[in-house]
Amino acid sequence: MTIDYTDPRSPSQQIADDLREQINAGRFAAGDPLPSERTLVDRYGTAPQTTRQAIAVLKSEGLVVGRPGRGIFVRERLPIVRVGSDHRAQWRKRTGQSPMQAEAEANGLSWYQEVLALETVPAPDWVADRFEIEHGKEVFVRRRRTWIEDVPTQLADSYYLLADVEGTRIMSEDTGPGGSYAQLEERGLTLARFREEIGIRMPTPNETRQLRLGPGIPVAEMWRVAFTDERPIEVFRSVLAGNSHVFVYEFDAPM
Amino acid sequence: MTIDYTDPRSPSQQIADDLREQINAGRFAAGDPLPSERTLVDRYGTAPQTTRQAIAVLKSEGLVVGRPGRGIFVRERLPIVRVGSDHRAQWRKRTGQSPMQAEAEANGLSWYQEVLALETVPAPDWVADRFEIEHGKEVFVRRRRTWIEDVPTQLADSYYLLADVEGTRIMSEDTGPGGSYAQLEERGLTLARFREEIGIRMPTPNETRQLRLGPGIPVAEMWRVAFTDERPIEVFRSVLAGNSHVFVYEFDAPM
Repeated sequence: MTIDYTDPRSPSQQIADDLREQINAGRFAAGDPLPSERTLVDRYGTAPQTTRQAIAVLKSEGLVVGRPGRGIFVRERLPIVRVGSDHRAQWRKRTGQSPMQAEAEANGLSWYQEVLALETVPAPDWVADRFEIEHGKEVFVRRRRTWIEDVPTQLADSYYLLADVEGTRIMSEDTGPGGSYAQLEERGLTLARFREEIGIRMPTPNETRQLRLGPGIPVAEMWRVAFTDERPIEVFRSVLAGNSHVFVYEFDAPM
Repeated sequence: MTIDYTDPRSPSQQIADDLREQINAGRFAAGDPLPSERTLVDRYGTAPQTTRQAIAVLKSEGLVVGRPGRGIFVRERLPIVRVGSDHRAQWRKRTGQSPMQAEAEANGLSWYQEVLALETVPAPDWVADRFEIEHGKEVFVRRRRTWIEDVPTQLADSYYLLADVEGTRIMSEDTGPGGSYAQLEERGLTLARFREEIGIRMPTPNETRQLRLGPGIPVAEMWRVAFTDERPIEVFRSVLAGNSHVFVYEFDAPM
């Protein structure tokens, strides 16, 4: 590609677009080095500053990473885990595995959930609102971090009403076969439906650290409420690394 | 808040966390200035450099913006439009309006869709794969940009098989009451279900320009395939500004 000076895009943007296309087309694989600055300057016939601007664009998009003294490399792509209605439909069929675990293991990926805390806390407002209970009323929360292929990919907090979980394995580290939902069902709390809300944003420094996110990697903040026919039984809030999840939903068209 | 030097978080991170909490709690409203650097230095008892690092963190998260010579301001929040299964369930009920338009207008927001291009193009691979047609076969595409309250919020390309749209208003600027789906139904192509896939990432420079995104604003890339009982009839690809959309899905638990 040569720079087109009649193009409304700046030369650095043309270079960034060209390199991005090559990365996305797989001509540079994950982990490959990009050509050196000198090579890029020769190839595109621009000033070194222009190629550096192009690289800065790709860094900000999370496509490449710089390794001091070694050069610029195409970012390793993490295994992508599919979540959503598809995935949730699996949980009951594969007792003893969470849907994300089933999905990961079906793709040959190692999966591990680290329990960070099991505690009784005053309900944060956003949890109380979804349970329709008074703000600050005590609820039980399981805080976990999910690891896939030894990479932390999700922070997940599941909130429950105390009366629903007291005396169940939901309050202990290992919830047993079928997980929390199986425990709730044993209590006669039969799951009927889910509501999921997903927002997207940049991570906070704390999330960046806990999920070991590089620059240019946004997160999804997901809220899920699980309902029986009558009422909410779980409020789930999770923060998922943007580069390792895709959300998939199938639903019927209205009649 | 005073800095806690026994806290594992750095002083600048403690300040960033404190300011973020105040912004999210609404103690600084959208458009409000943050306290001056001098005030922050006095309040937290740290060096100016430390408060500047805290502000840089909030900028990278898209929470605040700097206005040269004027200070740091809490970013104006855009109206949030809900999309997803909830929303899609509306389309048939409100003939003549797209679901997003109905949602926007129900919330008192102005809505406008700008047609960028109506063209016949060789199917990109990812469109051909979803239609299960050969790569490069000609398809018709409607390219649009959605504006809500005079802010561009979505780039949306809808692809159709030529045989499905030839002779219909889908090929003209105004698709008429009920939009493209109504036109397809008139042809006997009755919508049965949707599949949506959402990935999240930072925008490309082109997307940043077209959606006028500030720093720290990621995008969602959404793929939707609309199916009859037999086959796909529309492949829709959209890029949505992360700060103005939330995705909402409701679905039943499997039996």
